[in-house]
Amino acid sequence: MALTVGVIGGGQLARMMIPAAVALGIDLRVLAEQPGMSAALASVGVGDYRDLQTVIDFAETVDVVTFDHEHVPQEILRELMSRGIPVHPGPDALLYAQDKLLMRARLTELGLPVPDWASVENADELGAFLADHGGRAVVKTARGGYDGKGVRVVSHQHEADDWFAALAEDANGGALLVEELVQFRRELAQVVARRPSGEIALWPVVETVQRGGVCAEVIAPAPHSAGRLADVAADIAIAVAEGIGVTGVLAVELFETTDDRLLVNELAMRPHNSGHWSIDGSATSQFEQHLRAVLDLPLGATGVRDAWSVMVNVFGGPADGTMGDRYPEAFAEHPSVKVHNYGKESRPGRKVGHVTAGGDDLDTVVYQARATAAFLQD
Amino acid sequence: MALTVGVIGGGQLARMMIPAAVALGIDLRVLAEQPGMSAALASVGVGDYRDLQTVIDFAETVDVVTFDHEHVPQEILRELMSRGIPVHPGPDALLYAQDKLLMRARLTELGLPVPDWASVENADELGAFLADHGGRAVVKTARGGYDGKGVRVVSHQHEADDWFAALAEDANGGALLVEELVQFRRELAQVVARRPSGEIALWPVVETVQRGGVCAEVIAPAPHSAGRLADVAADIAIAVAEGIGVTGVLAVELFETTDDRLLVNELAMRPHNSGHWSIDGSATSQFEQHLRAVLDLPLGATGVRDAWSVMVNVFGGPADGTMGDRYPEAFAEHPSVKVHNYGKESRPGRKVGHVTAGGDDLDTVVYQARATAAFLQD
Repeated sequence: MALTVGVIGGGQLARMMIPAAVALGIDLRVLAEQPGMSAALASVGVGDYRDLQTVIDFAETVDVVTFDHEHVPQEILRELMSRGIPVHPGPDALLYAQDKLLMRARLTELGLPVPDWASVENADELGAFLADHGGRAVVKTARGGYDGKGVRVVSHQHEADDWFAALAEDANGGALLVEELVQFRRELAQVVARRPSGEIALWPVVETVQRGGVCAEVIAPAPHSAGRLADVAADIAIAVAEGIGVTGVLAVELFETTDDRLLVNELAMRPHNSGHWSIDGSATSQFEQHLRAVLDLPLGATGVRDAWSVMVNVFGGPADGTMGDRYPEAFAEHPSVKVHNYGKESRPGRKVGHVTAGGDDLDTVVYQARATAAFLQD
Repeated sequence: MALTVGVIGGGQLARMMIPAAVALGIDLRVLAEQPGMSAALASVGVGDYRDLQTVIDFAETVDVVTFDHEHVPQEILRELMSRGIPVHPGPDALLYAQDKLLMRARLTELGLPVPDWASVENADELGAFLADHGGRAVVKTARGGYDGKGVRVVSHQHEADDWFAALAEDANGGALLVEELVQFRRELAQVVARRPSGEIALWPVVETVQRGGVCAEVIAPAPHSAGRLADVAADIAIAVAEGIGVTGVLAVELFETTDDRLLVNELAMRPHNSGHWSIDGSATSQFEQHLRAVLDLPLGATGVRDAWSVMVNVFGGPADGTMGDRYPEAFAEHPSVKVHNYGKESRPGRKVGHVTAGGDDLDTVVYQARATAAFLQD
């Protein structure tokens, strides 16, 4: 019997599970939002992941259900569970990836280091938080944000009035999350995988460089992270994975503060941009590891293949064509850089691919990865 | 425009092109012999590669045609060429992979080192060759042999009478190839890739271990090959690729004789078992390189990721199930070994997958690869 994994969502994360599934002989089935998405090479059905019957029909063809994104409604996830269909990560864990207020409350309850935060329901409450935190703060919508969307730095209590107004009209009501504006030296990410039966594996903590709220580059391992920093990041990520009961791959985004603390920024309960380097730079990629984990198979080794791996995202793509049109120049100049093309049409700002370079000298590796990405985008 | 590559043949070689195609955003289309073959995850049509119209209809949907095997008839390949459809490797090169007598004659003409050989049409001619070569020789059918089939060691002129009889009934007539029984220390393989525009890239020469005429293990690089041996192997493979005009990946199987010569044994004009280690052990896998080469894109770097890579084939698979059933034990014991499952049903002697281990200590790497393969097969 082939092992069958169903992935809800047909984006590049589902796409990048295909090579691992091919290698391991796993039958990967994808429920995509629309035809022709990134994961279209896999066995793809098209349907709405917010429709219970669509998801049930899909789930009944697979051994385990997992995700390209975290947006499948709780009631659908719980219905799958009640029918005995394994779902990894499960709804109890995904809740904290779906709702940032619940996530902050749970992490606080677990005693994990987080920025100062509060749940605010109106401008006055936001004003009070601002007054207590030097007049500036970050406001986030609890649900639906990603890649910088639903996040706003404010310095006045009325700068989130539109979001408060939208919440007032939302049947679910709710509040906004407000957080202190953390003074951070840099951003890090600790990616881990956890099996339902408990085994955990960690890649080295990485440095992530964001531009406009979107991950632009990742350096693995994070420079100057050996020792205490790596240990603390690992401890936090393990505590999150175990405390929340995450199964599959979990990315814990961290702030390294100017006063040398690590604070949890965001969680992603799926393979994550901060782990893409592992495809080429680790013995086990985060995509293979995710498949192993959701099937409750022993996890793969997470050692690095190079002293340094640098991943650079490719945004937009050539306005007059596709990434592939630029391969002749990019490949000729950088024969050792690995190119990953998500098969998307070019569009300004869109993540259309990434490249990973590896080697012993960080400056050289950074140069190679950036230079290759530059060929592939406008 | 996406780059589109058509692969004729749906076996594991086509299957292993899928991960590279996913990464590079190449639209891979496969013409498989039957439904449910190894490459079924790709966009697969099913049809007979010996039927001209079937192949033309398939080829007209792609930018370039390449192969999982070497059996597409010359007249079909030439018809594709005449319609302006790029075919790599082309018919002029494939001819020498399809007919071992023509291959021997061409290599001899190119001045390349080969075993003593002759074309023999009857038992008397075979007897004469035996008399000149110590009474023993290897007889091969010119066409259709693979994995030890169509190869026979003989010590008497009548031991190939059945093959002579079959040739007599064959409308094409023809002869058998007879070769001296080479006294070899070991077998090696030099895998190279060549673009239509001429660029060539080589992986290190590897040692191949055959059992029952079938590749069982590969060690990359071949132990004690640095220096002269590697240089001679590279020179031979480049001379073959250029002399025959091969495009795509070419594997040159070599005998290392007890008197320190390298002789060309067989040629394969496609990714080859002796190059599977490159998926995990080289900066560029032979499958990515083949796609780059047939698209005439600059070739990737061929450096090794580990001091030693060892590939061990998995034969048969568990009689009571599939390779996947053995993953729990295999993965738990050997977390760093990479497993490749071709998605085939178990059948005694069938190549159902391979594993690759890598590391600094050859003994450890050999042990890990063999032990993992042992879990996965009966």
